[in-house]
Amino acid sequence: MIRAPKGLEGVIVATTLLTKIDGQAGRLIYRGYDVTQLAGRVSYESVAHLLWFGHLPNQQELSTLEIRFFHERALPNQVIGFLKGESKVAEPLSALQTSVSILGGLRGRIESSIIDSSMNLTAQMPTIVAAYHRLRKGQEPVAPQAGLGHAANYLYMLNNKAARPEHIRALDSYFTLLADHSLNASTFVARIAASTLTDVHSAVVAAISALKGPLHGGAPIYVWEMLQSIRTPENAERWLRDRLQKHDRIMGFGHRVYRTEDPRSRVLKELARQIVDPALFKLATTVEDTARKLLREEHPERPIDVNVEFYSSVVLHAVGIPPELFTSTFACARTVGWTAHIVEQLQDNRLFRPDAEYIGPEGLTLEATTPGHSA
Amino acid sequence: MIRAPKGLEGVIVATTLLTKIDGQAGRLIYRGYDVTQLAGRVSYESVAHLLWFGHLPNQQELSTLEIRFFHERALPNQVIGFLKGESKVAEPLSALQTSVSILGGLRGRIESSIIDSSMNLTAQMPTIVAAYHRLRKGQEPVAPQAGLGHAANYLYMLNNKAARPEHIRALDSYFTLLADHSLNASTFVARIAASTLTDVHSAVVAAISALKGPLHGGAPIYVWEMLQSIRTPENAERWLRDRLQKHDRIMGFGHRVYRTEDPRSRVLKELARQIVDPALFKLATTVEDTARKLLREEHPERPIDVNVEFYSSVVLHAVGIPPELFTSTFACARTVGWTAHIVEQLQDNRLFRPDAEYIGPEGLTLEATTPGHSA
Repeated sequence: MIRAPKGLEGVIVATTLLTKIDGQAGRLIYRGYDVTQLAGRVSYESVAHLLWFGHLPNQQELSTLEIRFFHERALPNQVIGFLKGESKVAEPLSALQTSVSILGGLRGRIESSIIDSSMNLTAQMPTIVAAYHRLRKGQEPVAPQAGLGHAANYLYMLNNKAARPEHIRALDSYFTLLADHSLNASTFVARIAASTLTDVHSAVVAAISALKGPLHGGAPIYVWEMLQSIRTPENAERWLRDRLQKHDRIMGFGHRVYRTEDPRSRVLKELARQIVDPALFKLATTVEDTARKLLREEHPERPIDVNVEFYSSVVLHAVGIPPELFTSTFACARTVGWTAHIVEQLQDNRLFRPDAEYIGPEGLTLEATTPGHSA
Repeated sequence: MIRAPKGLEGVIVATTLLTKIDGQAGRLIYRGYDVTQLAGRVSYESVAHLLWFGHLPNQQELSTLEIRFFHERALPNQVIGFLKGESKVAEPLSALQTSVSILGGLRGRIESSIIDSSMNLTAQMPTIVAAYHRLRKGQEPVAPQAGLGHAANYLYMLNNKAARPEHIRALDSYFTLLADHSLNASTFVARIAASTLTDVHSAVVAAISALKGPLHGGAPIYVWEMLQSIRTPENAERWLRDRLQKHDRIMGFGHRVYRTEDPRSRVLKELARQIVDPALFKLATTVEDTARKLLREEHPERPIDVNVEFYSSVVLHAVGIPPELFTSTFACARTVGWTAHIVEQLQDNRLFRPDAEYIGPEGLTLEATTPGHSA
């Protein structure tokens, strides 16, 4: 018996060919390529191909995937019907979770491979989020448009108009940066679910269930709310000191894995510099600098740096994603990672079945006063 | 860094006050009580109270829980509406997964505690399964009936008539026996999802996603199909030898944890003796004895015994549960265990975030021929 640390911190539970996180050096690698090299240089579709198939696509492979994504983006009526009814009630991640579950149920009898289901679901995720958002606002969903890539289509379906090229590029880079991050809680859940030989859609439903939690996918909206609350650079220090005095957590700082700056946030900050309103960018950088300074005063023993969520929030806002869709947008990006891990798990599978140590009493017996069988 | 064995076998990932499995002695204990002592002696509601609150209820606590279950069994229209549309398409576990996801979405804004959500969902699970089954057959769902316990209500809602007392007792015992089993894949997934502070319904959705997999919850129907295929005791040896020669797995035998007979199967076999058609019981015991003998010949180094699924299948059949609902019925029973583990996880939570070891290349660079950004 091995007794693992709580939360399995520092425990290697799988080998992977997908992603390497070097927390000390602040590097993130997808199948050999530094993610900061990929983002904005190749499309998210190319990165999806890289993660699923192990190599960057040539032009023909890329076209094949793009065409496939286009043909598979549209949603069946059952999902639109559900979203029509529930989009006024269910919160975005819940509606996404239910929609993927419905898609899985419809797909049940289609004979398809793991990778086919993975590509199909990845294509549909932004369509679900966009349809949900429009229906919630009382607008009709917008059908996907031929010739647009994954990021461009998402913005088009959200807004019913072509997005600006710099916004498409920024969102495409965001998708790439968030595509995978090794065994975070949602990806770990997807692999465990897959280890029972459940279907791809169910394993992704399980992943979304975990992503819903505020300790995992729920933070970017809090960063945004923090920036809204601070309002101007001049307020930053007072506001942040006040929070730290109350021992509140500063959102968008710190990560279990990185001991230095999250490499994704460097890229996102540069994107923010290019596309975010200068006043907002100034606010964000002032909050970053001030919070880092105050956190170093408070914790001189360990640097606490900005994490991926901090600049994600301003980049997503700048390209026109409303804050309540930040985590759903994260889910769209991460679907490639989840499904690539599912494919990998199934290539050399063993059912996950850990142990728990029982620390309660034993040998108790029913007493005469115990209410008997009530049936 | 600790390198864990594949599937986390033999790795203790949590301490628990809920359930102890003694795989060597073949014992299963819920909060100090041997499960074979509880099954049939106290109701499933009492066992739910025991697992959730740490002690068996007195008469007043039991009545309070029974009344609460009754008031919370009915389903909102949104779930019935979904089941009307999808019950002809989605398989049972998929429909259950989607229904729980919808319930979670509706519940989103209700301020309720973890334990309140747990009781609410446990009350509703059999109602979902029964409504699904009736709608699939073109029948109207049956509303729950006051004064009936959890097992009795399930059978009543399935068949629209009062069930026989011995069937109710047998199903109630089955529910107790299957209520918890420590960190099987679905319960582990529920705890990891809960560790992100996601909601109870989402954590249970994740658990159902894992239970759907044939390596976890999908086996009882295969046992049933095997018995149907063998047909008569005289066919057993030939049929089983044939399978073993083809290196096919014999369904209903063997378990990762038990090295001797699964204690639950002893109780289920005795229940089967009481309520199953004698010819079917004879078939089942002959298949059990023959398979055990052949498996010992094949694997003299380790005893492979009947597991919980073997006699579950004949007991569930005898009380009137159709085979396609076996795993959904398992899910109804296990909801208490899932939610009790969620409650326990949140009492002393740490986000699950294990590591993966990257074994791929590093330092790759984009080539001139790599297709550029396509947006």
